[in-house]
Amino acid sequence: MPAIKLTLQYDGTRYAGFQRQPNGVTIQEKIENALRRTTGDEALKIGAAAGRTDAGVHARGQVVNFRTDSRIPIDRWPFALNQHLPEDIVVVGAEAVPDDFHARYWAVSKRYRYTIEHAPFQSPMTRLYAYHWAKELNLDLMRRAAGLIEGTHDFAAFRSTGGSAKTSVRSVSRLDLTTTGPLIMINIAADGFLYNMVRIIAGTLLEVGAGRRTLDTVERALTTGQRQFAGKTLAAHGLCLDEVTYGTGPKRPPWEQDEEAE
Amino acid sequence: MPAIKLTLQYDGTRYAGFQRQPNGVTIQEKIENALRRTTGDEALKIGAAAGRTDAGVHARGQVVNFRTDSRIPIDRWPFALNQHLPEDIVVVGAEAVPDDFHARYWAVSKRYRYTIEHAPFQSPMTRLYAYHWAKELNLDLMRRAAGLIEGTHDFAAFRSTGGSAKTSVRSVSRLDLTTTGPLIMINIAADGFLYNMVRIIAGTLLEVGAGRRTLDTVERALTTGQRQFAGKTLAAHGLCLDEVTYGTGPKRPPWEQDEEAE
Repeated sequence: MPAIKLTLQYDGTRYAGFQRQPNGVTIQEKIENALRRTTGDEALKIGAAAGRTDAGVHARGQVVNFRTDSRIPIDRWPFALNQHLPEDIVVVGAEAVPDDFHARYWAVSKRYRYTIEHAPFQSPMTRLYAYHWAKELNLDLMRRAAGLIEGTHDFAAFRSTGGSAKTSVRSVSRLDLTTTGPLIMINIAADGFLYNMVRIIAGTLLEVGAGRRTLDTVERALTTGQRQFAGKTLAAHGLCLDEVTYGTGPKRPPWEQDEEAE
Repeated sequence: MPAIKLTLQYDGTRYAGFQRQPNGVTIQEKIENALRRTTGDEALKIGAAAGRTDAGVHARGQVVNFRTDSRIPIDRWPFALNQHLPEDIVVVGAEAVPDDFHARYWAVSKRYRYTIEHAPFQSPMTRLYAYHWAKELNLDLMRRAAGLIEGTHDFAAFRSTGGSAKTSVRSVSRLDLTTTGPLIMINIAADGFLYNMVRIIAGTLLEVGAGRRTLDTVERALTTGQRQFAGKTLAAHGLCLDEVTYGTGPKRPPWEQDEEAE
């Protein structure tokens, strides 16, 4: 059966995360329902998703794969599926991929964005997509902390309990701050992430910027791997999975792959 | 009684417009309820609003005025009122003003923004704040049409029925297009607007950009005042009242003021 890769955007506000679960409506359920309605194949399932985003987390570039015998032309898939999807989930791309393509195993890099609205009051228009911060922030200090975290480290201190990955070493290839008006965007790309890693890094940078945490403790978090030296896990609604980059095969053999939610 | 001017932001999605009406929940009702709860004055009413935004229209800089004997310090008003407001309405500023201040009569200029998302698919994150357009657009032609409309004209062709203003001559001091990613922002400032004027101007520019209307018809709309030569009224959700600028007294005597919804 031919394999297809889909790129998705969603507003995670109403959902209990990406992955199917007994309690709460999930993105996976909505996508699989749309696939079943489009193909008539009642057993159709998503093979994998690039990132298992948590409840309330958004996506501008989530990737999933599935297999089907349907003869719908590849460029018609987004239109066909969007007819069966609610307005807050949109398929923006479809691509034919090799049979053994795997949205998680083949991903060489994922990029997330955490958005903070730095203003006296939170704008009603960004309330679902940005974490609000009213007090002073030193962006320069935040950028210096980002510089410390960028690179290959043991990120054990930047991980919530509940993750299952065997190693907590990750390579953060990009960690920078961009601003537009009152919005501060923390952009982070890595070869993989631990459970809640982006939200804990965002919390750490915010605490440094607010003068509640020193650059010194950030270094200690990286060297000791102790959770107490990193910042709080910021709220889910500021987080967005922006982009997944793929190689031409699996990055590592499947039995060495991490499978943590993000 | 001292007079106070409030600056508001709101997400108009859930509301039947600014102005109180028998059917549907309005922004005015929510604001007046918050004022009454904050002051204990059950008769307190808003004196005026700068723009009577229609159902679904948003605001980043709506202005209202009211009078009260309450002794709440002026800088505490936003915090006090926001406690009694839903998350999609936020008071971002409060200012003491002269007793005869009037949010509509004293406004010398209002600036609106109409946002178009020009992309194959509409992003779930902007679906409530931008009008989606998937087909080709010629931005250069849109800018030329904007240049024709800018200035002082009789805008009779850019007005929906239902308005009550005595004259349809307005001075558009600014009409330009800015872009960020897939978003096209039509920025328009004028001394006043006719009913649906911004949404009709946005529709006209869009039709010109899409090749469905010539620059010639735009000129005819301005010279003849006939509605048929202007574009369609675009959907409310792309519109936002961005800013109101004030002079030090009424712009014109009250009996010469226009009172159209926008």
